[in-house]
Amino acid sequence: MLPTAEAHDLLDLTRELCERELAPKAADFEARGEFPREVLRTIGRSGLLGLPYPEEVGGAAQPYEVYLQVLETLAGSWLAIAEAVSVHTLACYPVYAHGSEALRKLLPDMLGGELLGAYCLSEPQGGSDAAALTTRATRDAEGRWVVNGAKAWITHGRDADFYNIFARTGAAGARGISCLLADAGTPGLEPQKAENVMGLRASAPSQVLFDNCTLSADRLVGAEGAGFTIAMEALDAGRLGIAACAVGLAQAALDHAVGYAREREQFGRPIAEFQGVGFLLADMATQISAARALLLAAARLKDAGRPFSTEAAKAKLFATDVAMRVTTDAVQVLGGAGYVSDHPAERWFREAKVLQIVEGTNQIQRLVISRALVRG
Amino acid sequence: MLPTAEAHDLLDLTRELCERELAPKAADFEARGEFPREVLRTIGRSGLLGLPYPEEVGGAAQPYEVYLQVLETLAGSWLAIAEAVSVHTLACYPVYAHGSEALRKLLPDMLGGELLGAYCLSEPQGGSDAAALTTRATRDAEGRWVVNGAKAWITHGRDADFYNIFARTGAAGARGISCLLADAGTPGLEPQKAENVMGLRASAPSQVLFDNCTLSADRLVGAEGAGFTIAMEALDAGRLGIAACAVGLAQAALDHAVGYAREREQFGRPIAEFQGVGFLLADMATQISAARALLLAAARLKDAGRPFSTEAAKAKLFATDVAMRVTTDAVQVLGGAGYVSDHPAERWFREAKVLQIVEGTNQIQRLVISRALVRG
Amino acid sequence: MLPTAEAHDLLDLTRELCERELAPKAADFEARGEFPREVLRTIGRSGLLGLPYPEEVGGAAQPYEVYLQVLETLAGSWLAIAEAVSVHTLACYPVYAHGSEALRKLLPDMLGGELLGAYCLSEPQGGSDAAALTTRATRDAEGRWVVNGAKAWITHGRDADFYNIFARTGAAGARGISCLLADAGTPGLEPQKAENVMGLRASAPSQVLFDNCTLSADRLVGAEGAGFTIAMEALDAGRLGIAACAVGLAQAALDHAVGYAREREQFGRPIAEFQGVGFLLADMATQISAARALLLAAARLKDAGRPFSTEAAKAKLFATDVAMRVTTDAVQVLGGAGYVSDHPAERWFREAKVLQIVEGTNQIQRLVISRALVRG
Amino acid sequence: MLPTAEAHDLLDLTRELCERELAPKAADFEARGEFPREVLRTIGRSGLLGLPYPEEVGGAAQPYEVYLQVLETLAGSWLAIAEAVSVHTLACYPVYAHGSEALRKLLPDMLGGELLGAYCLSEPQGGSDAAALTTRATRDAEGRWVVNGAKAWITHGRDADFYNIFARTGAAGARGISCLLADAGTPGLEPQKAENVMGLRASAPSQVLFDNCTLSADRLVGAEGAGFTIAMEALDAGRLGIAACAVGLAQAALDHAVGYAREREQFGRPIAEFQGVGFLLADMATQISAARALLLAAARLKDAGRPFSTEAAKAKLFATDVAMRVTTDAVQVLGGAGYVSDHPAERWFREAKVLQIVEGTNQIQRLVISRALVRG
Repeated sequence: MLPTAEAHDLLDLTRELCERELAPKAADFEARGEFPREVLRTIGRSGLLGLPYPEEVGGAAQPYEVYLQVLETLAGSWLAIAEAVSVHTLACYPVYAHGSEALRKLLPDMLGGELLGAYCLSEPQGGSDAAALTTRATRDAEGRWVVNGAKAWITHGRDADFYNIFARTGAAGARGISCLLADAGTPGLEPQKAENVMGLRASAPSQVLFDNCTLSADRLVGAEGAGFTIAMEALDAGRLGIAACAVGLAQAALDHAVGYAREREQFGRPIAEFQGVGFLLADMATQISAARALLLAAARLKDAGRPFSTEAAKAKLFATDVAMRVTTDAVQVLGGAGYVSDHPAERWFREAKVLQIVEGTNQIQRLVISRALVRG
Repeated sequence: MLPTAEAHDLLDLTRELCERELAPKAADFEARGEFPREVLRTIGRSGLLGLPYPEEVGGAAQPYEVYLQVLETLAGSWLAIAEAVSVHTLACYPVYAHGSEALRKLLPDMLGGELLGAYCLSEPQGGSDAAALTTRATRDAEGRWVVNGAKAWITHGRDADFYNIFARTGAAGARGISCLLADAGTPGLEPQKAENVMGLRASAPSQVLFDNCTLSADRLVGAEGAGFTIAMEALDAGRLGIAACAVGLAQAALDHAVGYAREREQFGRPIAEFQGVGFLLADMATQISAARALLLAAARLKDAGRPFSTEAAKAKLFATDVAMRVTTDAVQVLGGAGYVSDHPAERWFREAKVLQIVEGTNQIQRLVISRALVRG
Repeated sequence: MLPTAEAHDLLDLTRELCERELAPKAADFEARGEFPREVLRTIGRSGLLGLPYPEEVGGAAQPYEVYLQVLETLAGSWLAIAEAVSVHTLACYPVYAHGSEALRKLLPDMLGGELLGAYCLSEPQGGSDAAALTTRATRDAEGRWVVNGAKAWITHGRDADFYNIFARTGAAGARGISCLLADAGTPGLEPQKAENVMGLRASAPSQVLFDNCTLSADRLVGAEGAGFTIAMEALDAGRLGIAACAVGLAQAALDHAVGYAREREQFGRPIAEFQGVGFLLADMATQISAARALLLAAARLKDAGRPFSTEAAKAKLFATDVAMRVTTDAVQVLGGAGYVSDHPAERWFREAKVLQIVEGTNQIQRLVISRALVRG
Repeated sequence: MLPTAEAHDLLDLTRELCERELAPKAADFEARGEFPREVLRTIGRSGLLGLPYPEEVGGAAQPYEVYLQVLETLAGSWLAIAEAVSVHTLACYPVYAHGSEALRKLLPDMLGGELLGAYCLSEPQGGSDAAALTTRATRDAEGRWVVNGAKAWITHGRDADFYNIFARTGAAGARGISCLLADAGTPGLEPQKAENVMGLRASAPSQVLFDNCTLSADRLVGAEGAGFTIAMEALDAGRLGIAACAVGLAQAALDHAVGYAREREQFGRPIAEFQGVGFLLADMATQISAARALLLAAARLKDAGRPFSTEAAKAKLFATDVAMRVTTDAVQVLGGAGYVSDHPAERWFREAKVLQIVEGTNQIQRLVISRALVRG
């Protein structure tokens, strides 16, 4: 159920875009491992790259409850696009919420899709332990920031127009981290080759090296030392995005499996009529409904301005585990047909796995949740 | 999140009743296997026995979204009471939705808790296959209904004031079934001994035999032959009730386990701080949040007048499976302490099991869901 | 497959004992919570209480591979008896493996079942952290041991003839613990009331208090300070015993469920013919076969004199988790009939839970296994 | 534990071959999707392609208990090779067990690896319902067999030297099927392009079309109408082969994950020391041990000449489900590193999926097991 007529229209538009722009291209781009920059531009011009931001900065002022259903719909058609929208939306957050007036002037181009963003937090040695990051930014004689270090698993690492860089500007620990904004092409900002990933190959992450990458003083986003707080705020919302991607992927896999099981006959009947398959489909459908409901409940908390961090962690954990199970079972329902690229099931199965890892592995989500329980 | 201030007050009242009337009595009544008729009368006088019905018939005009959260709260304190409220609410449905003007005059006493209801659908030989029921009602010379047969697993079988009886008045199959209303004490309506159940012992079901039980013609509820349809309508809502009971039970078990794990030290630390326990608690919490969200999403569909039958089946399936897992794990977190009656964990574990069985076993729910998927 | 003709005979004898002595009594003793001391005496006189010990001390010189299949068979008939045999066998180990010549003179009576043993390791505050135990034994002027403290969850706590006591005789930590042997009736050895357990009620554990319980110097088993090592050696074998109990319980539950599903008809067919039930039974059967195979593989390692500690932990973890799932599902297959004491399914379900907790909770087993993995 | 010194030597040889011939080539061949015909020839010349067959026909007279541990070892190094050995071993079975004296003269070359076999049972429309196959063989005027139809998912479809063809020679149903043997290159035997599979790409299956493919009368294997029985006998053993492949794959994934978790530090400690990872590894190890034990127990039944069909189905079901879960979790332990081809974890994850599908989907295994349970 959608809250407004406007949201209905938005979902209709999204479905139309999926049918016209995404579905016909997904398999090819994924097979080639080519980043769909033009598709994202179209998405941006359709207004889908700034949904949860206010209209005065170029957004669409949509509640998360609606934004996430747009993401879910996109993910059902092409995960790489949905994840790109989610990461880009995340990447706009620091400037939106903490940026200076000058930096905020960039928001219309960011939210309109002319400028694509990356979010450089993870490092090769510190996937889950963000507060231990070692990329360092020091001030030179003119007060400019000089960044050195390496970031890893950066979505849009090779394709972004702007980069949020979380770097150590002070002592060890979370309070010594600041957030900086860099443009693509800044000398010393060096995207590396795309990772040879198992899925989501059209949007493969890469390392980004910083070799005396120098940024003017006004490229600091928020206060010095506030970087970790900014990163965590953005991640809370980003986890909802990943959860929505997972639900969309799982729903697509279920729909495909149901369609196949209705048509495919064995022993003289459609296989969906055997309880061995039918009950499997029922469990898949039930888990997806639960994941979607959990996700939207967390979104409504955020939309109401209430604490939602723990519920976002639950949604990310639950929805991505569901996506992994459901896509695994969808391949199973198709049998041999599920294992070949004639059907998208095998692609979804490969893609689902990454969702259990990104924006905090599911082990990290359990840590977040268990700490909240113990705190009470 | 509750939709209205009135709902907040209602939940506050419920919590207060739990603390004052339920919590101090639950363990004793359960140990003795004594039905808490007076507690239910108190519940009724507090207005909690007619929540989802309109005010003009004595109800409280609450949406299901709110009613189910009341049930959840009660279940967290004493499952037998929550289940009694759920079954009673179900038992009022046929008269409310399909009863004659004369029968509807009974509603204020039903919804006010003076008259407690039972719902006689299941039979010894036909648990899941309701349409095959064999209890028969024939008309005598004066047009009265004469009922013969046996019903099984009847909640309030020995304690109800009124009984909905689903009996065959016509041919085989679903369309040959009608609904009749009988008062306790009607000659030939013979409650049998309480079943020796593993849990929910304060509200043990029983068989009810009908031996030439004669009812006047005006005791037909709805049209002749409409009984199966009435039963299924009521069951859809009843499944939401059981799902709410399951969520409340699971939440109580989690809260108790978290409390224990914070206090209990092993190897020099509270066991909650070991990831082996903490991650288990996190998974329990995540599943409960998902179950609650799924349940409330289904409730909002019903409240909006939209089809909700499949979502109710999903909620019943998912929430009761969660309750079984969570109560099993809660005992585990307590270790030996969880296995003795000093803590309520072992009672919750025994109680959870019945929720996977009643109002359609979870296998029947999967059948309902898979058929909806195949139908599309 | 059994290794010898003698083993076949032993299993036949066991089955006959089950049929004649156990099956007719189990439900009644469990309902009353009465300890079946006479049944155990019969078991002992049949030679089943000393199976894995050599003939020269009164045992039957059976390999663990055979002994565990006897346990499994007993557990399928009455878990309390199987668990008593397992605990008693464990309780004979310290004297057998580490006792002085004088103490070993007791073995024929122990292994013949005239003397029933208890194993006092756990304490109220230290379930899983055995090395932290606080029961203390000090020497008095005459060199006698004076024991003070409390032990908890002691099987046969109120019924044993002899007690192994693990007490602190030295500094903190594992090396400060010694093993002592006490007879029932020793002044200051004070069994407490039976715990109000959910299952296994015919053999409810109890606390045992030691209040200046004084033992002669020759009651030390093994060297001073060797107690923890002795306890752990015994536990490794004890875990295999619990795993065998779990497999027997699960197999009984499956057999009962299969029998019911073959007879019970719904929608015009035995429910076993619906894949929704049939596949559930298939998964139960598969898990049981895997648990039994894992258990026997660990037993053959022990019989071959090879390290088996990690495999015993795996067998205990896996088999007891299987027993919990299988008994839960067996109740489900029976539906309402599974929830009442007319069928043994509800008893098995209650009993299974304790197996995940005793002789090292399944969390402790995971700790044992993960440490072995990391060690490599 | 291996039964003989000879078996120890055989396993040592296998490990050496893995290290020298398989491990260095696996990743490249898989990336290119090239069939490793030469590697298989080496394997054959080392005696590993005829292990369970008697020496007089060129085999190594090894019990299944040993043969399957060879397969497991190979699978831990390169699944495509292990699966090729398993399928080839299966493909030799009809001629070995039912072939005429003339056909059996081929056995030394088959078992020595000069001739590679394929097993043409599945068809595009009848994956699980083998008895419904529609490929037809009719006799021409000279008594030769003329085969027409299509087979699907044929391992070695494009690379085999000989093909077992199961074709309808009589009426509908299982008794109208016969087994024929064809050489590669026979006119009308037309391998199709390799399927674009997600994993096991070095040994991608293909369709094989038969277009008036004509075979001399003496190419009938076994009696006319005996084909289905032959196929099922072979499949029972083939399922053990797949189970062994699954165990080997899972063990490799666990070993890699353990190694990574020991080295990788987060929050200042190797991640294996966090129970969140350690317990996951413990569960993986436990499942693998159970799968291996179940598999070898079934093998010993076969080796003892006892019925093993149901136990083989259990082993296939359990081991392949374990492999899917374990490889999924292994990727998770590695995090981002698990999702890229720098580590083999992502390959194993893709490969595991096919094992749940081949030689009877796991749904078919459950059907086999549930029928055996109902039969009793």
